[in-house]
Amino acid sequence: MTRLERDDSDIIERIDHEERVFSGKLVKVNRLDVTLPDGRPAMREAIRHPGASAIVPVDADGLVTLVRQFRAPIGRVLLEIPAGKLDHPGEDRAEAARRELREETGLSAGKWTHLTDIVTTPGFCDEVISIYLAEELTRGETDPDEDEFLNIVKMPLSELTERVMRGEIADSKTIIGALMAQELLKEDGHGV
Amino acid sequence: MTRLERDDSDIIERIDHEERVFSGKLVKVNRLDVTLPDGRPAMREAIRHPGASAIVPVDADGLVTLVRQFRAPIGRVLLEIPAGKLDHPGEDRAEAARRELREETGLSAGKWTHLTDIVTTPGFCDEVISIYLAEELTRGETDPDEDEFLNIVKMPLSELTERVMRGEIADSKTIIGALMAQELLKEDGHGV
Repeated sequence: MTRLERDDSDIIERIDHEERVFSGKLVKVNRLDVTLPDGRPAMREAIRHPGASAIVPVDADGLVTLVRQFRAPIGRVLLEIPAGKLDHPGEDRAEAARRELREETGLSAGKWTHLTDIVTTPGFCDEVISIYLAEELTRGETDPDEDEFLNIVKMPLSELTERVMRGEIADSKTIIGALMAQELLKEDGHGV
Repeated sequence: MTRLERDDSDIIERIDHEERVFSGKLVKVNRLDVTLPDGRPAMREAIRHPGASAIVPVDADGLVTLVRQFRAPIGRVLLEIPAGKLDHPGEDRAEAARRELREETGLSAGKWTHLTDIVTTPGFCDEVISIYLAEELTRGETDPDEDEFLNIVKMPLSELTERVMRGEIADSKTIIGALMAQELLKEDGHGV
């Protein structure tokens, strides 16, 4: 038995009941009544999110296309990789990635590589973002959502990862996409 | 003017009004009435979170100490770096990191390096996690929160980053902490 396959029965909670306690436009909150590993009851809260796909689009010159977007919850503009929510839970994540890349940047890609799936904040939310590397890019028209305002910027992927290492990039999916794409392309001998 | 200093006035939303619409045990949801860049009104939702600190504890042998924890919102156990919420918004984040490392793992560190601050999911939440590399570790007693059940595991940092690159690590702060610590220690010549 390796360390990662160890017995977790002493830390697993049993979920006894789940019910919706708040339903907003985007945010849905459920209350979970659980039984702790020691038998005591406890309450957890879980935001139910449909999930999302995100894309690191890297062209033949090693330039990555990013979006600048105002994020109302933090009151400032963030530099991010293109991304968007699934239209419905269970939507094909690769298909959502193709759609969001096209809508936000106008780009289509001939080569797709799944980098990883991340849970953004598992203490209180079930959001999973699937992150893809997109290569062999061709340019078309953008088609953003009607309440979505974006500025597109391009920079070398190596510059983005340097900014990550200097602590200048705040968005978690963007940090992960940049570092994993850089590592993967380095391994493949596509020094960027 | 570099590309990152470009004028964002065409994408900035004005926040006109904010009010609490749900207040749970942990999750607080605010409604934001905003004016879009084109002058139309819109509504955003923002989960207000106190923030958190997370720690990548790496010992002299290059072993990183991790916690396995059941996460009710996703119904499974995740492998994560030690982390915890701030006791109150504005708490000193380095102090919170020292406390959480001690409570969850029993470790104290003689050398601390701030890696970065991340926003986990800026579309609907203001959570910021500060991530630190902790070195020169000494061992004491753990003191977990009363409703927190953890299993501690150790592995080489290089093994953790290999698991990240294979898509086996889901937690976003853990992926970022692992990749940035590995890169930083490599640059410092502490090949791990």
